[in-house]
Amino acid sequence: MVASTQIVLASRPEGVPTAANFRTESAELPPPGDGQVLLRTLYLSLDPYMRGRMSAAKSYAAPVEVGAVMVGGTVSEVLESRAPGLSKGDVVQSHSGWQTHQVTRGKGLRVLDPDRAPVSTALGVLGMPGFTAYSGLLRIGRPARGETLVVAAASGPVGSAVGQIARIEGVRAVGVAGGPKKVAYLRDELGFDAAIDHRDPDFAARLREAVPDGIDIYFENVGGAVAEAVYPLLNTYARVPVCGLIADYNTGNAPEEPNRLPAFYSRILTRSLTVRGFIQTEFVDEMYDDFLTDMSGWIAEGRVKYREDVVDGLEQAPEAFMGLLEGRNFGKLLVRVG
Amino acid sequence: MVASTQIVLASRPEGVPTAANFRTESAELPPPGDGQVLLRTLYLSLDPYMRGRMSAAKSYAAPVEVGAVMVGGTVSEVLESRAPGLSKGDVVQSHSGWQTHQVTRGKGLRVLDPDRAPVSTALGVLGMPGFTAYSGLLRIGRPARGETLVVAAASGPVGSAVGQIARIEGVRAVGVAGGPKKVAYLRDELGFDAAIDHRDPDFAARLREAVPDGIDIYFENVGGAVAEAVYPLLNTYARVPVCGLIADYNTGNAPEEPNRLPAFYSRILTRSLTVRGFIQTEFVDEMYDDFLTDMSGWIAEGRVKYREDVVDGLEQAPEAFMGLLEGRNFGKLLVRVG
Repeated sequence: MVASTQIVLASRPEGVPTAANFRTESAELPPPGDGQVLLRTLYLSLDPYMRGRMSAAKSYAAPVEVGAVMVGGTVSEVLESRAPGLSKGDVVQSHSGWQTHQVTRGKGLRVLDPDRAPVSTALGVLGMPGFTAYSGLLRIGRPARGETLVVAAASGPVGSAVGQIARIEGVRAVGVAGGPKKVAYLRDELGFDAAIDHRDPDFAARLREAVPDGIDIYFENVGGAVAEAVYPLLNTYARVPVCGLIADYNTGNAPEEPNRLPAFYSRILTRSLTVRGFIQTEFVDEMYDDFLTDMSGWIAEGRVKYREDVVDGLEQAPEAFMGLLEGRNFGKLLVRVG
Repeated sequence: MVASTQIVLASRPEGVPTAANFRTESAELPPPGDGQVLLRTLYLSLDPYMRGRMSAAKSYAAPVEVGAVMVGGTVSEVLESRAPGLSKGDVVQSHSGWQTHQVTRGKGLRVLDPDRAPVSTALGVLGMPGFTAYSGLLRIGRPARGETLVVAAASGPVGSAVGQIARIEGVRAVGVAGGPKKVAYLRDELGFDAAIDHRDPDFAARLREAVPDGIDIYFENVGGAVAEAVYPLLNTYARVPVCGLIADYNTGNAPEEPNRLPAFYSRILTRSLTVRGFIQTEFVDEMYDDFLTDMSGWIAEGRVKYREDVVDGLEQAPEAFMGLLEGRNFGKLLVRVG
């Protein structure tokens, strides 16, 4: 018998999650049955969408039940296999959640090639965040050479891929991030055409200066104050793929401030905007193979760079996740579990 | 010399327009020059978009200057022509605005065939409102057989065409209108699958009952309370063509009520909605000929019906326009000028 250390949802957060919303438990796992494997988690991905799963509100996926293991994408090693096509020692992309071990169906687990790219990239630039950037930008953003794009959380795994793919498509890429270190990284390492600190008291003015021809694509992954500065600068026929709203995740539904909806809605009308929510799964069948080919190529050519922020030990996951919601990470946030 | 009676914008409204925002004047017109025509207005169209033009705020078109003639689509008779292809007695679709006569360029004026359809329809079902319905529904709404559509102001020229075209496309059409007379008209005359009175205190519940499979297309031309009841019922991948927001036109930008933007924006994300503003001019080159052919055919076959609400005399225009913003008209609102 193998014991899995698990972090479960102890209670639903009201507003900002705290350590008290999580609890560590240990569970004895049964041996894998027919078609199953026993996995040992190597890396756990921490992502903003997990905040949504902690709430009971209906979203695009079912909430995590109180007392259940927190969900999450993982890279794992196969310790035992009774599934066809999987062998002891294989490294696979899995969805084991916040735990050290899992017994699960072998079907649907993708085997990773450690010689092609570090296996951790299957949770970042070559995984869900990278594909969110690729599919949302190409299918909804529809970039055209010479246009201007703005993306926030631009040093994160989605934003950094969005900006770099935009530049490959001939689009001027303007990144927004928090603090001088991240801003310098966007400009100097990733080659963004401009980078702006959203903590700058003159943020809105800086943004305006950075987009002399207005904004044609706003890749929305934050909402809040950045969105408020961006919308007045959107050009006629601008496209806004919406894949996340991290700034609003901890906010109730009717905060005590002026109703900004009429002005927002009116701008959609008067500028002929396209605002389109999406989850990357919508495009998987159609585009995932192209994505792996394109993205691996761009990484090999040095045209797409990525950065990981790795935390050691599953017990660090709650603290690291709370930091993610405040933008304290720098790059794709991973927990090295095994 | 011919004198034109004109209604000019006397001042910009704050909130709801009043009679004091308009002034009647008389202007002596010069004789038509080379390439020009002298027109006598037969019908003036009154439309919600005119509220936007009365404000100084930037929109998709320039505001009417204070002291200038109110803009508007018209059907006019040619009294004198120095323009090629136009003769005295021709009836044309023009953009003379709120006045009895105009000297203008002949180029671009469309000659109407009074034998094909009553000339007034060039301002309604066979004109801008009809084309707004046709292009927005087909290009942005992308109706699929068996889906459900909701449209408000459904007895108006845009809404009534939207619902009837939707039914031709095999879509369940639910119309929202104000008062029992309009609701009965939608159900009994136009053949909507369901019709609901937005003045019903249980409006939201009635709407929910009318869309057991949720809503796939919400053709947005009102905003406000109807939009608020519709959005929670939108299905994943629903489309929202936005062509007008009459309920919000008289509202300031930050009314003193809870901020509804985060909840609205979050719904776009979690339901993968497409919210797309548009002005019919975007689709004219691509679709206008098809529209005239299809719509004339549907009218001849009795599959699309229309209703006009005709007011007599240019001097009635301000009062009729104010009534339009309150939904007091019943059908396409026209002023018979000549």
